[in-house]
Amino acid sequence: MKGVQFLVAFVVLALASSFASASDPSPLQDFCVAIDDYKSGVFVNGKFCKDPKHATADDFFFSGLNIPKDTSNPLGSNVTQVNVAQIAGLNTLGVSLARIDYAPYGQNPPHTHPRASEILFVQEGTLYVGFVTSNPENNSSPNQNPGVITIAKAVFGSDPPINPDFLARAFQLDQKVVKSLQAKFWWDNN
Amino acid sequence: MKGVQFLVAFVVLALASSFASASDPSPLQDFCVAIDDYKSGVFVNGKFCKDPKHATADDFFFSGLNIPKDTSNPLGSNVTQVNVAQIAGLNTLGVSLARIDYAPYGQNPPHTHPRASEILFVQEGTLYVGFVTSNPENNSSPNQNPGVITIAKAVFGSDPPINPDFLARAFQLDQKVVKSLQAKFWWDNN
Amino acid sequence: MKGVQFLVAFVVLALASSFASASDPSPLQDFCVAIDDYKSGVFVNGKFCKDPKHATADDFFFSGLNIPKDTSNPLGSNVTQVNVAQIAGLNTLGVSLARIDYAPYGQNPPHTHPRASEILFVQEGTLYVGFVTSNPENNSSPNQNPGVITIAKAVFGSDPPINPDFLARAFQLDQKVVKSLQAKFWWDNN
Amino acid sequence: MKGVQFLVAFVVLALASSFASASDPSPLQDFCVAIDDYKSGVFVNGKFCKDPKHATADDFFFSGLNIPKDTSNPLGSNVTQVNVAQIAGLNTLGVSLARIDYAPYGQNPPHTHPRASEILFVQEGTLYVGFVTSNPENNSSPNQNPGVITIAKAVFGSDPPINPDFLARAFQLDQKVVKSLQAKFWWDNN
Amino acid sequence: MKGVQFLVAFVVLALASSFASASDPSPLQDFCVAIDDYKSGVFVNGKFCKDPKHATADDFFFSGLNIPKDTSNPLGSNVTQVNVAQIAGLNTLGVSLARIDYAPYGQNPPHTHPRASEILFVQEGTLYVGFVTSNPENNSSPNQNPGVITIAKAVFGSDPPINPDFLARAFQLDQKVVKSLQAKFWWDNN
Amino acid sequence: MKGVQFLVAFVVLALASSFASASDPSPLQDFCVAIDDYKSGVFVNGKFCKDPKHATADDFFFSGLNIPKDTSNPLGSNVTQVNVAQIAGLNTLGVSLARIDYAPYGQNPPHTHPRASEILFVQEGTLYVGFVTSNPENNSSPNQNPGVITIAKAVFGSDPPINPDFLARAFQLDQKVVKSLQAKFWWDNN
Repeated sequence: MKGVQFLVAFVVLALASSFASASDPSPLQDFCVAIDDYKSGVFVNGKFCKDPKHATADDFFFSGLNIPKDTSNPLGSNVTQVNVAQIAGLNTLGVSLARIDYAPYGQNPPHTHPRASEILFVQEGTLYVGFVTSNPENNSSPNQNPGVITIAKAVFGSDPPINPDFLARAFQLDQKVVKSLQAKFWWDNN
Repeated sequence: MKGVQFLVAFVVLALASSFASASDPSPLQDFCVAIDDYKSGVFVNGKFCKDPKHATADDFFFSGLNIPKDTSNPLGSNVTQVNVAQIAGLNTLGVSLARIDYAPYGQNPPHTHPRASEILFVQEGTLYVGFVTSNPENNSSPNQNPGVITIAKAVFGSDPPINPDFLARAFQLDQKVVKSLQAKFWWDNN
Repeated sequence: MKGVQFLVAFVVLALASSFASASDPSPLQDFCVAIDDYKSGVFVNGKFCKDPKHATADDFFFSGLNIPKDTSNPLGSNVTQVNVAQIAGLNTLGVSLARIDYAPYGQNPPHTHPRASEILFVQEGTLYVGFVTSNPENNSSPNQNPGVITIAKAVFGSDPPINPDFLARAFQLDQKVVKSLQAKFWWDNN
Repeated sequence: MKGVQFLVAFVVLALASSFASASDPSPLQDFCVAIDDYKSGVFVNGKFCKDPKHATADDFFFSGLNIPKDTSNPLGSNVTQVNVAQIAGLNTLGVSLARIDYAPYGQNPPHTHPRASEILFVQEGTLYVGFVTSNPENNSSPNQNPGVITIAKAVFGSDPPINPDFLARAFQLDQKVVKSLQAKFWWDNN
Repeated sequence: MKGVQFLVAFVVLALASSFASASDPSPLQDFCVAIDDYKSGVFVNGKFCKDPKHATADDFFFSGLNIPKDTSNPLGSNVTQVNVAQIAGLNTLGVSLARIDYAPYGQNPPHTHPRASEILFVQEGTLYVGFVTSNPENNSSPNQNPGVITIAKAVFGSDPPINPDFLARAFQLDQKVVKSLQAKFWWDNN
Repeated sequence: MKGVQFLVAFVVLALASSFASASDPSPLQDFCVAIDDYKSGVFVNGKFCKDPKHATADDFFFSGLNIPKDTSNPLGSNVTQVNVAQIAGLNTLGVSLARIDYAPYGQNPPHTHPRASEILFVQEGTLYVGFVTSNPENNSSPNQNPGVITIAKAVFGSDPPINPDFLARAFQLDQKVVKSLQAKFWWDNN
């Protein structure tokens, strides 16, 4: 989802999945290979560009997405990002990519991407994916309001409910606490 | 923040505050007064427009922002929205407004606006406002990645920490539980 | 109205009103606190940003909208602006705000906002507001032409006519001259 | 100027000039040939499209820009527009064109294009062209405020002044009145 | 590359590669699940949306990217597309995906994506990828001109030259003809 | 066409034609007169701007479009460009212009504009113009996929076929070779 609803995903026995995200640039030239901010403390909205005559093939290439990463951590997942930090040529092009390794029952915890749409491609295993929309009062009538997602209600008050095992792990809460939260009524800021 | 970081706000003794939000339309005519989706189950990306020759002054006016709303609810706040549902002429113009009434220590719980920037204007009282940025690894180097906000870490692991009283109320948790959560280490999906 | 029709507003006994405007940025990071153009005579399309690690709460705050301004001037109004010059953190976020104080019968003279939509919130008193659309031949059929507003016709030839007292004050003309202008036929550049 | 400053143009002995304007669409397909709003009183933000399989060469062609138009009218000019009304295939493409015939000393009166940039190409004769920027307090520091153009000040208080003969014709005022207006001090809504 | 340079890719022994593309939507709601154009011959710029209350999980899911496709065709490649036609929920989100199977020495012939950036992820094998920029006179100085790619010069006159075997297959020409073309001087329309 | 289909144009006896193109800027101020990239090897996405107080009339003017250019070259055409390189004030405004002189039967070879729409105005003579859409499988159903134009199929496999004389000149091929190519079946990357 673009600019967006948090995506609640958990996975059973997924070893690797890659996804790509798209933000929204307005490139004014063919490419603008990013260079380090050339003066300490001075930034523009985006990145400075290399002289296009000095662009090389390496500016558009990244190797290593084939390498599994260690998932023995509390979340049971590990993200390998490929964005402008890894491929300088991605600057202004509005696309990036990541590989996520999951341990069995590992998870990518509830999150939002403030400037991106996301598409997931499951390489191996089964990935359980969901997302929670904006507060329904805002969403049921598709109109030009800003949208609002009340975090607590979206996480613990979504209908149907998010798997409590998943939430317990994501929020480091006892499963009982999660279930009691899910049984409560949640107000939102509509 | 546009399409972005959730805004953690609480307020002491604020009776009324209004804020305006801006989404991102591309109006192709002077105005496009919204009309009801004219066929059940059929929507466009936005709203159908009224014939501009039939637009009236009422399409651009809303009265009632002066009326305080009851704040005797668990959150201690109440939002009066003024968007395209209240002012049909706002369609495609990318601006909306809301009044929020707060009881003493009332709160507008942690939330995100997926398609909007927000500016707050405090009419009366004192409002305590904060926001949590994208995961710092993403933010410290301002670049063209999609940004990611890991909900649990942003809420319970932000540095400096969010006021535990505020979080206890927002998440309907005991204050002790909140404090123990704030003492934990939070992984994110960078 | 976005990038658009001039807004003809006059006011009877309005003491204070605030409005917010939205331009159209494409933020590529959470925020980009504006800094002074760091080399005399060198500007970018927008503003340079502060290192996000050095952003402070003050970059997002402005105090003083509660202070009435003197309206004893020919227009009988006074604007307190709150944009990126006052709140550096507004840079790239596309929202700004202003307070306008009006003396009785004071006015905000006919104007256009080339890069903004506008929403007005009347705090106290009664504000008489109107706007003139693009030349009707352009507007009656909502299509993808650039729109055109012929200033003289919009001001003196609008139908229904703008209050001649208001125009006399705005254009420093005798009311009789205004009325004779309003009685003429106005050609436009359609 | 896009979304913009009014353009004050007058011309000495120009017989024909064409200009092209660009608005800001987001085409999602190769083309979207406009069709008439297919239900009375129902409009979308733009135009409905013809089935692309039924597009013909005529949807992308207009003949007649070679024909001079009569300029014996008070303004001494005549505009031949070529936009989506004349070339249905221009829909969503963001470009339109017009031919303007001027009589000697004819004028295209002060106007703004709320959704377009403009470039002029003088075919024959000499065209005197100028534009007035946003209120200087807004413009001298290029920042993200909405911009404001106070009509009366821009027209009669611009520095350097607009040719009073030109303004007298555009506003149907006696040249003396124009000159007295140009001698006054003009407040604006900064 | 967004809206842009054709991408010359060929592959040695690549069995499967997936890539994702990003176009540039402006979603005004959380999602807008596409429905069939509900009246023959009537289209909007994009797609009509399903009532969001009727959206289902299937609107956001596609299965089958694991299935290799037959590559015994003249190009030695086969594309499995996953866009709004396969996943209705992708409508307005600006991301799509495709799997390409290549036979050894198969190729995805020179092409452009008029409305997209592209990122490639090689799953298995080695893929030889290149792209040709806009005419250098346009590109060496990154500015706001429209860019131009002269097809014949880009294909046969690029420096360094594209592999003649690849071009011979793509253009169904004898390799000798390709080499003689590559030896010629190519004018462009700068 | 914006960011899009190559335009196949040839001309019989056209002496002069001008066209204008529109890219997609987001100007944040009235204008941003371009200045030379002020540090070798450092570029932004676009151009640095002159201090607006130092802008002059010359920044917005170009003379010389009346001068025919020599067309005695293999293509029989010559382009006079007017973009930000010639008129610094065009920076961020999204419009540029060009004059093309054609010798009899001269041609502007097949090309694409990756960041622009184009409108042509024929000044003198007759210009034969055509364009080839995205692969029909993509285009017949107007949807949110990225679009794809397979160069070889678009050039030699378009239906109806492009004039073989035109293609022979553009690709420096014998007319017989062109006709044999046009008789082949062309696969694309749908």
